[in-house]
Amino acid sequence: MEENDYQAYFSSAARLMRPNAIRALSKYVNRTDVISFAGGYPSAETFPIDEIGEITARLIRDHGPSVLQYGLTRGTEEFRQYLKESLPAILGPVEIDQLQITTGSQQGLDTVCRILIDPGDVAFLELPSYIGAMSCINNLGAEMVGVRLQEDGIDMDHLREQIVETKRAGKRAKLIYTVPNFQNPAGVTMSIAKRQELLKIASENDLLIIEDDPYGDIHFYEEHINNPDRPPELLPIRYYDETGDKTGRVIYLGSFSKVLVPGIRTGFVVAPAALARKLEYAKEAADVCCSILDQSIANAACRQGLVRDRLPKIRKFYRNRCNAMLDTLGENATPKTHWIKPDGGLFVWVELDKQIDAADLLKQTVENGVVFVPGQPFFVNGEGANTLRLAFSKETPENIVEGVRRICQSL
Amino acid sequence: MEENDYQAYFSSAARLMRPNAIRALSKYVNRTDVISFAGGYPSAETFPIDEIGEITARLIRDHGPSVLQYGLTRGTEEFRQYLKESLPAILGPVEIDQLQITTGSQQGLDTVCRILIDPGDVAFLELPSYIGAMSCINNLGAEMVGVRLQEDGIDMDHLREQIVETKRAGKRAKLIYTVPNFQNPAGVTMSIAKRQELLKIASENDLLIIEDDPYGDIHFYEEHINNPDRPPELLPIRYYDETGDKTGRVIYLGSFSKVLVPGIRTGFVVAPAALARKLEYAKEAADVCCSILDQSIANAACRQGLVRDRLPKIRKFYRNRCNAMLDTLGENATPKTHWIKPDGGLFVWVELDKQIDAADLLKQTVENGVVFVPGQPFFVNGEGANTLRLAFSKETPENIVEGVRRICQSL
Repeated sequence: MEENDYQAYFSSAARLMRPNAIRALSKYVNRTDVISFAGGYPSAETFPIDEIGEITARLIRDHGPSVLQYGLTRGTEEFRQYLKESLPAILGPVEIDQLQITTGSQQGLDTVCRILIDPGDVAFLELPSYIGAMSCINNLGAEMVGVRLQEDGIDMDHLREQIVETKRAGKRAKLIYTVPNFQNPAGVTMSIAKRQELLKIASENDLLIIEDDPYGDIHFYEEHINNPDRPPELLPIRYYDETGDKTGRVIYLGSFSKVLVPGIRTGFVVAPAALARKLEYAKEAADVCCSILDQSIANAACRQGLVRDRLPKIRKFYRNRCNAMLDTLGENATPKTHWIKPDGGLFVWVELDKQIDAADLLKQTVENGVVFVPGQPFFVNGEGANTLRLAFSKETPENIVEGVRRICQSL
Repeated sequence: MEENDYQAYFSSAARLMRPNAIRALSKYVNRTDVISFAGGYPSAETFPIDEIGEITARLIRDHGPSVLQYGLTRGTEEFRQYLKESLPAILGPVEIDQLQITTGSQQGLDTVCRILIDPGDVAFLELPSYIGAMSCINNLGAEMVGVRLQEDGIDMDHLREQIVETKRAGKRAKLIYTVPNFQNPAGVTMSIAKRQELLKIASENDLLIIEDDPYGDIHFYEEHINNPDRPPELLPIRYYDETGDKTGRVIYLGSFSKVLVPGIRTGFVVAPAALARKLEYAKEAADVCCSILDQSIANAACRQGLVRDRLPKIRKFYRNRCNAMLDTLGENATPKTHWIKPDGGLFVWVELDKQIDAADLLKQTVENGVVFVPGQPFFVNGEGANTLRLAFSKETPENIVEGVRRICQSL
């Protein structure tokens, strides 16, 4: 068969699949002679490498036959038990049958979408939104409808309008996807009032909420930075549901990629039990189970405090980098350049003068040895040509200063 | 929301999802007071635990920042390079852009199905077939059509008839799924002549072949048992394609679960480049990438000969258990009981007298402390009530003798 002959065999899903915009930059991201604000990887400087080495050696030595064997599709008993005990502090009550361990939170997102979305269903996403969510939802043939983002989260009036519009068009609106804390890419945090309002809107309009929370523990609030517990303003939407009307509309996605290490690919979903059961069946067909070794490492690391105890250090590490970026922008950016000051996470979102195309800017800055991600691919409605995302996670503060200066010069 | 209210949110796929028949037995499989021939797990006695401990400690110590970081969606460069160099011995030429690393071969299967199958497409499966494949294919809404299995593999006349029948009904036949070596569950091995004939049929009828080969290295041929290379009769269908007409119709699924350890969940797909590219996009949305630590362990284990050098030992280990099972059946089974002598793998397939229902038999043997998997769930057409699968991988030869005796007594 020739290359083109395979087209005839592709599923509708495969025809929708495209490489994402960040992938196109991977040739820059991996170059060492370039200052990269592109990829959103956590810094390896935050990895507790020696401790993970010790944990892993101990696990294989003492529990080799079980940590190297197949395991339960839902995830190991030990790890789910740990999550059941530790998550209520931020999520409210969690039952063991509401938990599904996944290969990073990305698999949680994909699996949740698989059990919910039929072609033609409408999913609401923030403008801008996380590209990985757009891929999952798009590949399933859903119609993605954008809702505007304000500095305190989703524009709830716009969401209401979009819901009405969707119903008027006779379409089935099924879910809204949101990253409430230090959103990727915009760095925005949803206010408590809006978290509660979103629950109300979801309940009134038969929507489910997919709450993706990979960054919630990495905040930069001075008064809370040394406290391992989250401040109230960062409690997940699910918490307000559990301590309020208990609408049961939130599916929460958690991750250890940014607070432990991403290479062991361990995330989780907390979903109403009826959904969690379907997630388990979907996961079984998808890959039987997650790496048992990885789950065992994550479990042991969590239980010995390797996540919790290191949060203050990780927060300060990223806050330093964030501040270097914000300060340099403040000193060098043109008056028509605006940016959002994030309260945590890994990203600064920049809006350029309307006439400037960030993709054109990128061509210039690449020449000057700096890369970032143009913002347009993060918008489901094609807006945002004058926006860009700067990740401050990879480079040293010195490189951040230098890189941001070069971008500002290109402007 | 109440439990039942979530039904309204399920996708068509979710509505098709069911727990599989082996899952229903998990409460027995994990009991220690029962002799289990149910689960198809490899024996932990074959795991090179100390060596994996050493490899892992070295990897984390010397390469912590990279093995604990995110990595490429296709899989690590090092591991794909190893596969590109080692696979040609059994697969013929392999290009780097034909390789996708997956979370076990199950994820390879699921991802391949996602890029190929639309609801209503016809997929051909052996009678009986692997339950995990049935789940993937069923969840995508395909129509599963069974083709009879003979002692030398698929009944090619029946396959041709089923293809004609499918075309006559105006349906789109897209693929055939087969496990050519020591098939799960039937233990059957496809002859070389049939491997070549299947390629011809696929080419004549616009079908793709999904070749799933998790057991190929675990054969029991006395004359080859100490030779790490596969004997010619076990070269994959893809090999005959690559050294023959190069029809490009084979998608090969590989696994290290049975020859190294399953807990690190590392498998791979070899597919025509046009398909591999879509697999990469699908995989990126599904989970970004596999565990980098696990891939690094598998890569290092393979490169230092930890798979290849141990094959003779692993083969003898399972052959011993298989022989214990076959001998005990020979001595104790009723005249109307038939079974297939496998040339490798983990399973013996048993056909009882037509009037006996294996599910009824199971109820009796559970009382006597023995479990197995009734065969009916392995048949896409609902046949096989009088069949059962006996896995000889878990129990010691002594327990196998005892367990098979008890089953024969119940008969």
